[in-house]
Amino acid sequence: MKKLDESEIIKIFQTGFGKKNVGSEDVEIFNLGKNKIVAKTDTLVESTDIPSKMKLSDAARKSIVACVSDFAAKGVKPKYGMISVNLPKTISRSKINEIVLGFKKACREFDISIIGGDTNGGKEIVFNVCLFGITDKLVTRKNSKKGDLIFVTGPFGYTSAGLTMLLDKKKGNKTFVKKAIKSVIKPNPRLSFGIKNKKYFSSSMDSSDGLSTTLNEMSKQSKNKFIINKVPFLKDLEDYVKHYKLNLHNLVFNGGEEYEFVFTTSPKNRKIIERNAVLSKTKIMEIGHVTSGKGVYVEKNNNLTLLKDAGWKHF
Amino acid sequence: MKKLDESEIIKIFQTGFGKKNVGSEDVEIFNLGKNKIVAKTDTLVESTDIPSKMKLSDAARKSIVACVSDFAAKGVKPKYGMISVNLPKTISRSKINEIVLGFKKACREFDISIIGGDTNGGKEIVFNVCLFGITDKLVTRKNSKKGDLIFVTGPFGYTSAGLTMLLDKKKGNKTFVKKAIKSVIKPNPRLSFGIKNKKYFSSSMDSSDGLSTTLNEMSKQSKNKFIINKVPFLKDLEDYVKHYKLNLHNLVFNGGEEYEFVFTTSPKNRKIIERNAVLSKTKIMEIGHVTSGKGVYVEKNNNLTLLKDAGWKHF
Repeated sequence: MKKLDESEIIKIFQTGFGKKNVGSEDVEIFNLGKNKIVAKTDTLVESTDIPSKMKLSDAARKSIVACVSDFAAKGVKPKYGMISVNLPKTISRSKINEIVLGFKKACREFDISIIGGDTNGGKEIVFNVCLFGITDKLVTRKNSKKGDLIFVTGPFGYTSAGLTMLLDKKKGNKTFVKKAIKSVIKPNPRLSFGIKNKKYFSSSMDSSDGLSTTLNEMSKQSKNKFIINKVPFLKDLEDYVKHYKLNLHNLVFNGGEEYEFVFTTSPKNRKIIERNAVLSKTKIMEIGHVTSGKGVYVEKNNNLTLLKDAGWKHF
Repeated sequence: MKKLDESEIIKIFQTGFGKKNVGSEDVEIFNLGKNKIVAKTDTLVESTDIPSKMKLSDAARKSIVACVSDFAAKGVKPKYGMISVNLPKTISRSKINEIVLGFKKACREFDISIIGGDTNGGKEIVFNVCLFGITDKLVTRKNSKKGDLIFVTGPFGYTSAGLTMLLDKKKGNKTFVKKAIKSVIKPNPRLSFGIKNKKYFSSSMDSSDGLSTTLNEMSKQSKNKFIINKVPFLKDLEDYVKHYKLNLHNLVFNGGEEYEFVFTTSPKNRKIIERNAVLSKTKIMEIGHVTSGKGVYVEKNNNLTLLKDAGWKHF
């Protein structure tokens, strides 16, 4: 019998609701009256998503970031939010204050108004966030064109290293440890960059399920081949990986929760996008191009290696 | 130190977000583009909300009913929904199918399209539902007028009896046991009645936190006194209560989770509302009237007894 991983469970739900599209985009979109409403919900569960060394304020903020990141990938401004919180009966007032602080911080940062929600008892802490915005047109995951360039909004690989440090022990030089842990507890979604440059994207997708998952999904949905000729990492990650004999490829492509995004664009937009990236302090990296065919391949010394979807699964 | 009950926790959140209005209405309302969007989120948690004898399909349906009931009270049609589900890693495929079945059933019943959601691992089953609709104007909790009549959409008291039967043992005659248990596992929100009659309501509120809580909230928000001269129960409940020496008042006023609603209306609308109620098979009951002053009072043999807010608390 097939293992019940998340994609399998999602399939059961999708089949049940008779909708092919449920879950095939970063955000949900629906018409109410004269507007296209964009909505996204995300859940943070104590036992699976919150390392014990993570502050509850950071966890609360991150539960909003997870949704904001999907809005960022689509270049849509989230305006309103609803927050549902489950709390164990034994929780202290100071922990609750910490949680509120984290939500408030995120709302200020991304200019979101909380309009409601609910609080419940439960065996563990659960944050469920639902954000709303409007848009005229949605950049999809599927419209990359042959000849398009592939970009990411920042370097990858830190979250996987940072999570190991939070769960196990810190290793590596101080600056690197700090950077890696920060990538887990204070992720920065690229909202202003996404909003500003959306018009140039032929396709885009939030990368938080892992870069290999994201690239494979975009390639599959657009029925194009993606060639990656520059793996998006920086020297400090390479040094760390060499020193501790880790697998660089795995950290970069299969880490997940980076809250960066991938976009494709026509080469004619390269200059303007790069200029906008500097203005919004977003360190975008060009990592490859779109061509005809299928699958995602990493190009190295003129050899192509298939990049499998091996990103993060919730189950 | 004050006990952390739900209203206390909500207060901490409200103070945190600097919004007096968060949580003061049945549903959330916000403007996006040219429309007033109505949204409501509700969470069902295995350890606190799902009796072990309740089927997961009924629990899933009920998590949608809980939101629909708030839309019913406001006379707004919910159109779209998002569902977030937390599932323990050990859950079986047949249990997941049961859950999907319950969600599907509710969506068909109330004509709701599920547009997305997410699935997560967790220590216990959690269903978080978020529904959306649009409206031009919202009936609030606060606009009852002196001289208005007070109605409920059905008799109260069965859920409290039914829950005891589900948790402990069944007692009473077969028909009553069936009715009481059904009130817990298959609640019927009064959506079509609400939509049809909304225009006659001066104020309205979903009663699922308990009738005493609902009446007190509506009285407080409207700065009017509510006189209850007919306690909304039927003979079968009275018989059951007498036989087992239970407290009728407590069952009717403080049970909660009835998914009925309370509304106030001008006496001139009585006839048309009563006619509409027959058409939609909703057994509304006139329970009292609004007058000047404050507080909620039960009138019996010309004596007035203060009805305290003693409804159901989540914590």
